[in-house]
Amino acid sequence: MSQFIFENRLSSLRSKFDSLGVDTVWIIQPENRRYLSFFKATDGQLNESSGSLFITMDQALLLTDSRYTIQAQEEAVDFEVITHKQGLSNALFEIFDRLNTRRLGFEGNYLVWDLYEKAKERASKHSPPVELIALSAIVDEMREIKGPEEVEVLSRSAQLTGDVIAQVIKELRPGQAEKDVAWRIETLIREQDADGVAFPPIVASGPNSALPHAIPTDRLIREGEPIILDVGLKVDGYCSDMTRTIFLGNPPSYFKEIYHIVREAQVSALEYIRVGMKTAEADSVARDIIKKAGFGDFFGHSLGHGIGLAPHERPAVGPLKPEVLQEGMVFTIEPGIYIPEKGGVRLEEMVILEKDGVRVLTTNKNFFAF
Amino acid sequence: MSQFIFENRLSSLRSKFDSLGVDTVWIIQPENRRYLSFFKATDGQLNESSGSLFITMDQALLLTDSRYTIQAQEEAVDFEVITHKQGLSNALFEIFDRLNTRRLGFEGNYLVWDLYEKAKERASKHSPPVELIALSAIVDEMREIKGPEEVEVLSRSAQLTGDVIAQVIKELRPGQAEKDVAWRIETLIREQDADGVAFPPIVASGPNSALPHAIPTDRLIREGEPIILDVGLKVDGYCSDMTRTIFLGNPPSYFKEIYHIVREAQVSALEYIRVGMKTAEADSVARDIIKKAGFGDFFGHSLGHGIGLAPHERPAVGPLKPEVLQEGMVFTIEPGIYIPEKGGVRLEEMVILEKDGVRVLTTNKNFFAF
Repeated sequence: MSQFIFENRLSSLRSKFDSLGVDTVWIIQPENRRYLSFFKATDGQLNESSGSLFITMDQALLLTDSRYTIQAQEEAVDFEVITHKQGLSNALFEIFDRLNTRRLGFEGNYLVWDLYEKAKERASKHSPPVELIALSAIVDEMREIKGPEEVEVLSRSAQLTGDVIAQVIKELRPGQAEKDVAWRIETLIREQDADGVAFPPIVASGPNSALPHAIPTDRLIREGEPIILDVGLKVDGYCSDMTRTIFLGNPPSYFKEIYHIVREAQVSALEYIRVGMKTAEADSVARDIIKKAGFGDFFGHSLGHGIGLAPHERPAVGPLKPEVLQEGMVFTIEPGIYIPEKGGVRLEEMVILEKDGVRVLTTNKNFFAF
Repeated sequence: MSQFIFENRLSSLRSKFDSLGVDTVWIIQPENRRYLSFFKATDGQLNESSGSLFITMDQALLLTDSRYTIQAQEEAVDFEVITHKQGLSNALFEIFDRLNTRRLGFEGNYLVWDLYEKAKERASKHSPPVELIALSAIVDEMREIKGPEEVEVLSRSAQLTGDVIAQVIKELRPGQAEKDVAWRIETLIREQDADGVAFPPIVASGPNSALPHAIPTDRLIREGEPIILDVGLKVDGYCSDMTRTIFLGNPPSYFKEIYHIVREAQVSALEYIRVGMKTAEADSVARDIIKKAGFGDFFGHSLGHGIGLAPHERPAVGPLKPEVLQEGMVFTIEPGIYIPEKGGVRLEEMVILEKDGVRVLTTNKNFFAF
C-alpha cells in the first residue's frame, strides 16, 4: 500500500470531525488501527492492546508500550509514536494536554466497559474537562468500500485459497482424519505467498458437517458423506474465506438434493445481487429457495459477511441490520443446510460488488453437478 | 476434567452472589465461559460472541446461536442451551423473564461499551426493571488459583513445549530463515499431543530480537547473534509459554554479559519468590539486578504473567497493579534486556507457586553458562 493511501484515509476521517462533534478520535480496534496507520501489530488478547491512535485535525499520535515501540516507528510513519510506561489509561492525561482535546470520540463498538469508565474518570478530572463521545462504527464503515489496491490484494488472497482447496480435494481419500486434512491445508497455506491462516481451517465430515463452526477431530472421512472444507488465509493482512462441500464416491440422494438446493440458492444470489439492494433482500433471495424446498429451519446463519482486514466485517449480509449494498464492497455468499446428526452442506464464494453485479473473486470451480 | 469440578466452580461463584449484590451473573469472556461450563468454543472475533452464560442460584443457561447449538449441548452438560435468532441483546428480555432477574452482574473488564448500553436499555425497559452491576474480574480471580487437575494439564503443556524447543535448538543452523524455524516449531507442536499453538511462535534473530513481540521474518539467522525462541502451545485448552535465547557459535562478550545478567535476574526471582509476596516485589528482585548492571532502561515489560486457559491472565507479575502471590498460582518468569537495533535476550520459564517457593514446570534446561 502506498503512503498516499494512508494520508487519504486520515483526511477522510478528519473530514467527519465536524459532523461527529469531536476534535480528537481514539482508535483502539486492531484492524481500524492498521487501516489508518499501517501499524500491523495485532492484539495478543482481548484485554491486551498493542496500541491506540489519537488523531486530531493536525496531529496523529500512536500510543503503545515498549514491546511495540520500534515496530510502530517503522510501520506507522505518519504517526508520532509515544511509549507509555504506566498503562494506557494513565497516559491519557498527557495525551489530552498535548492534543488540546475537549471532545474525544471513541469506538463504542470496541472499547471495553472498564477502560471506558477509566477514560471517563480521567477525562472529567482533566482541566479543562474532556467529553467522551461514542463513534460506533465510523472507521468500520470506511473499511466497507474497498479501494483498487485492496481489491487487488483480496483477489490474490481469494485465488490462493482456491488453489489450496483444489489441491486438498485432489488429495482427499477415505480414511484420512479431519485433523490431518486440516493440517495439510495449513501446510499448503504456508507454502503459498501468504501471511498465514485467516482462521483455523474447518474440515467437518459426516455428522460433524452439521456444525457450521466445527473443529476438526480425529474422525476418519468416509465415502458418500458430506465433507465441508472451509478455508481462509491472509495476504498482506487481507483475508479470504471459501467453502466447498465434497463427496467421495456416490452420496445418498438425500444429500444430492440438499447440495442441489444450496448451490441453486448460491447461484441465484450471485446473479440477483445489485448495487443499491438491501442486505436483507440479498439474503432472502437465497433463503427463500431453501425455505421453499422445506429446509428453512436448517439454514440458521446469514447468507454472508463482509471481508477485508478482518475475516468478518461489515456489511453483514443477513436478515438483521439492513444496510444498502454498494459498489466496491467485498463479501461472501455462503448458504448452507445443516441437518443435526446427519450432516450439512455449505458453499461459499467471495465476491466484489461492481456496477453491474457481483464478480466472484474465488475460483468458481469444484462444484458438483448432481 | 471431571464434572464434579464444574459443579464446584458454579457453587463457588454462587457463594459470592450475596456479597456482590446480584441474583444473576452474565459471563461472556470465552475463557471464563469455558472455565464454568466446559463449552470449548472460542470467539471468532472480538465482536463475535459464540455464547453467554446466565447463572442464578438454581439455574444455568447457555445462550448461543445456531452455529454452536449442538456443540454447546454436547459440552456444557450442566447448562440448558438456548438458541437466539435475533441477536444476543434481543434475547435478553426472555432471559430476564425466565430467570426472574433483578440484579444482573456483568463482566466489566470484558463487555464492550455498545453491548453494555444495549443491555442497559433492555434492562431498564423490562418490567420489573433490571439493574446492571459491574463484576470486574470475579471469574478471572477464581481462575488464578489452579486446582490439581489444572496443574497436571499445565505441566504437560509446559513439558511438551520444552521438548519442542529442545528439538528446534538441536536443528538450528546459520542460514535458516526465521519464518522457516517458526514453521518448524508449529509442525513440531502439531506432532505432539497438543491442541495447537497458544500464540504464533516468535523467532527473532539479531536486531529483530530487540523487539519483544517480533513477528518472524525472512531474515536468515547468523552465528554469534542472539536468536530468541518464544513458544506456547495448548493441551486440553491450557496454555504454555517458554523462551530461550540461543547463540550459534561464539557471541560477542557484550551479549555474553547481557545473557549472564538476564539469567541471574531470572534465577534470583526463581529462588526468592514466596507465597504472600506482592507481585511488585517479585518483579523488583529481577529488575533490581538488571538496573544495577546498568540496563534498567532496556527491560520495559513486566517480569511475568499468569497463565492457564489464556496465555496471559492474572496475576500480572509486574511493578503495576500489586497483588499477593498465592499457593497454586501458575505464572511465567521472563526477564529480558533489549538493545534497540542490536538485539535482545529473554529467558522465560513457567512456574507454579507452592508452599515453599516456585517449582519450574518447563524444562529448566538449555541455558548457556557463559
